[in-house]
Amino acid sequence: MSLKTEHIYEGILKKDLVSLAKAMSILESKDHPARLPLVKKIFPTYGRSLRIGISGIPGVGKSTLIEKLGLKFIDSGLSVAVLTTDPASPVSGGSILGDRTRMPELSANKNAFIRCSSGYQGHGGLSRHAKELMLACDAADFDRVIVETIGVGQSEYDLAALVDIFIVLAMPGSGDELQGIKKGIYELADIIAITKADGDLLEVAKTAKLQHDNVISFMPSVGRRKKKVLLLSSRSGLGMDELVTEIDFFLTDAKKQTTFAARRNKQIEEWIKQEIHSQIEFRINQLLRSKGLLTEAYKKTLSKELNPLEAAAEIVNELIKTNL
Amino acid sequence: MSLKTEHIYEGILKKDLVSLAKAMSILESKDHPARLPLVKKIFPTYGRSLRIGISGIPGVGKSTLIEKLGLKFIDSGLSVAVLTTDPASPVSGGSILGDRTRMPELSANKNAFIRCSSGYQGHGGLSRHAKELMLACDAADFDRVIVETIGVGQSEYDLAALVDIFIVLAMPGSGDELQGIKKGIYELADIIAITKADGDLLEVAKTAKLQHDNVISFMPSVGRRKKKVLLLSSRSGLGMDELVTEIDFFLTDAKKQTTFAARRNKQIEEWIKQEIHSQIEFRINQLLRSKGLLTEAYKKTLSKELNPLEAAAEIVNELIKTNL
Repeated sequence: MSLKTEHIYEGILKKDLVSLAKAMSILESKDHPARLPLVKKIFPTYGRSLRIGISGIPGVGKSTLIEKLGLKFIDSGLSVAVLTTDPASPVSGGSILGDRTRMPELSANKNAFIRCSSGYQGHGGLSRHAKELMLACDAADFDRVIVETIGVGQSEYDLAALVDIFIVLAMPGSGDELQGIKKGIYELADIIAITKADGDLLEVAKTAKLQHDNVISFMPSVGRRKKKVLLLSSRSGLGMDELVTEIDFFLTDAKKQTTFAARRNKQIEEWIKQEIHSQIEFRINQLLRSKGLLTEAYKKTLSKELNPLEAAAEIVNELIKTNL
Repeated sequence: MSLKTEHIYEGILKKDLVSLAKAMSILESKDHPARLPLVKKIFPTYGRSLRIGISGIPGVGKSTLIEKLGLKFIDSGLSVAVLTTDPASPVSGGSILGDRTRMPELSANKNAFIRCSSGYQGHGGLSRHAKELMLACDAADFDRVIVETIGVGQSEYDLAALVDIFIVLAMPGSGDELQGIKKGIYELADIIAITKADGDLLEVAKTAKLQHDNVISFMPSVGRRKKKVLLLSSRSGLGMDELVTEIDFFLTDAKKQTTFAARRNKQIEEWIKQEIHSQIEFRINQLLRSKGLLTEAYKKTLSKELNPLEAAAEIVNELIKTNL
């Protein structure tokens, strides 16, 4: 480990936010030489922080909630790290309407750390290196780590598997439906919070809550606390205290149960598997670029001499023959 | 190719919908013996159908739009295939509030074919084998293939790369924002349709359209037709004819341009690459299961003798040494 990395490592342990930010850049890079040494150093702290996952569609009010939740934790004497993503443009690589200051008060608080990763590197808005980033938060000994993901899809399953409590935000839509809620989510979520429950929408939100309470009453709780549906309003403050209380209850309760440790161990297994695939993927992409195998196969496919599955199989055989 | 597969193949060519459904099940399976022979047979028809991608968050009105759009195409003498996903439960494997009959009129029409894949197999709601399913539609000579994906995330980038025209649905949210629209999407979308533009929301929708027209006026069109923002209402019918006209214009225009062919060729290259990775991934997963390598590494990681990156690197070396 270089002197510089050693310095960063020492900084993390002292909760120095500049060092932590530098460490995260190293951890998110594909091939930074300090990546492996740094993980090696900090891995013994794995799992120290409690992790809260928050998911929901754009516009549902995630940033507002995270800011308020973070400040509430800080008020009660806890330190808070937030891992969020900024879905950058896939074409130009930059963002058009930059919104890195979505949590102005929390950003300014010395007991908070906010990391905004580029969303495109992972699936559906979760950083590809979310696990490493959470590990860095463990090393810096944050009491709470809030991880945000947008959207409906793979990222929600990924995030749910990584956190100790998973909160899904949804808002009352037109009619009875809750926008942004899909079936599978009911099984993943520990808490479903119906946002914007104020003004004209309050009554609709109440009806939606009843319906969703009903759906949830039929679901098994699989060794975890019973699922909850809450009403939230960032305008009136409705539900905020209840949410904090529920999170505390859940986490305290969860830690006593064997499911908590089992879940964390399962995360390590997944981490190893994903890392195997990503190391091999990296290697293959390098080989494909250097060997020109793809050009040949591509030409044969354009002329319809081969189909894409055959072309791929030919290349795979070639790669295996030459020891990858 | 078995007699049964031969029979399915003949069926597809005659646009027999039962054969087509069977073929798609084979194409979506991981290791069905008929998968490769079938792709080989039908690959020469690649690219025959025109592909329309439709994306948007749950509740924005995708199904309603697809049904209306599909019926309009059929009215003008075209045949329509729809590829959609049903985000199944990741825990129980089944869906809770089954909604396979979201397009009742279109489902009943003999010139339409609707395929609903399980969303969890792919990322963010796009079937992992979307390319193969589209190929089957080419073979059955459908004039239009409508591919739907939910959510905000990777699936939108994936889908945009696979289709000839990409339509994003969004609805006016609270305030000026458009719900479900994230920055990157502006660059991917050919048409942004603001749904539910009726009743109380009509004025908000109109304001949103003006704002989005403004954003789009600053964007390069990158060799494609200029992007469009439309207002839609399934209740009043507003915008439906305009949308069909825009799609027709776009596709007619696109076919004349070199970008159309370039885009399709690019899709083949991506297809080969993805297939290489998925064949290797499949192989690795098999080896990991059979060799017990993971158990050993996992134990060492739990005891913190190794970290997940080291554990993965050890296994990768082992796999490569033994020719994968």
